[in-house]
Amino acid sequence: MKILVGYKGVNVGKDLLEIADFHARAFGAEVLVVTSMKGGANLDQSEVRTAEENLKHTKKYFEDKKISCETHLLVRGMEAGEDIVNFAREQGVDEIIIGVKSRSKVGKLIFGSIAQAVILQAHCPVVTVK
Amino acid sequence: MKILVGYKGVNVGKDLLEIADFHARAFGAEVLVVTSMKGGANLDQSEVRTAEENLKHTKKYFEDKKISCETHLLVRGMEAGEDIVNFAREQGVDEIIIGVKSRSKVGKLIFGSIAQAVILQAHCPVVTVK
Repeated sequence: MKILVGYKGVNVGKDLLEIADFHARAFGAEVLVVTSMKGGANLDQSEVRTAEENLKHTKKYFEDKKISCETHLLVRGMEAGEDIVNFAREQGVDEIIIGVKSRSKVGKLIFGSIAQAVILQAHCPVVTVK
Repeated sequence: MKILVGYKGVNVGKDLLEIADFHARAFGAEVLVVTSMKGGANLDQSEVRTAEENLKHTKKYFEDKKISCETHLLVRGMEAGEDIVNFAREQGVDEIIIGVKSRSKVGKLIFGSIAQAVILQAHCPVVTVK
């Protein structure tokens, strides 16, 4: 079994990784941690380095817990939601775990467009964690 | 561990129950199947009977698989999303599983307001199944 964790690297609560750890353990699954960046002419190299750094920490988090983990930085010109859904399908993933934490200007919790796209388009169940 | 399955009884794919079965087995959890109706003066008794009938079938589905299952028909004057989230908190549920299958008038898959309310307000992870 494979679990894909959509990881933004920033503003991600420990909860997301804890749930992924719990599921991986219960299902005997491996974890694919994925960060998606659109890329293109305006790609900021320092953002790439930060994302790579965050993914490295995540890999260590799972390896310390003896859970098999791959990390992927996707730069394929796609919006993050579409990118994650496509990658999940390509990799034959069984479950996608994502965070939902977007807030509107007035501080109300709202649906981010990435979460919405993933939930509606994924071929497999999607776990949302606040 | 407790898993709450938000069950509408109609238009619910077998997938929702299969995922609940899979999770209950992996986590060693019991399942609470919940249908929420607003109630009030316009409550249709035949809808209540249908909901009760659907819950009975669901209970049998899990019992046949040797999974501990309770069913609850909630008629508490609340919108379904709010009702499910509150009930989940009251019962100390660890995970909520719901279906997302709403379609717009032009057939496009959209977020139902129930799914949206549950995902944004739940105290625990929410699994969405198409």
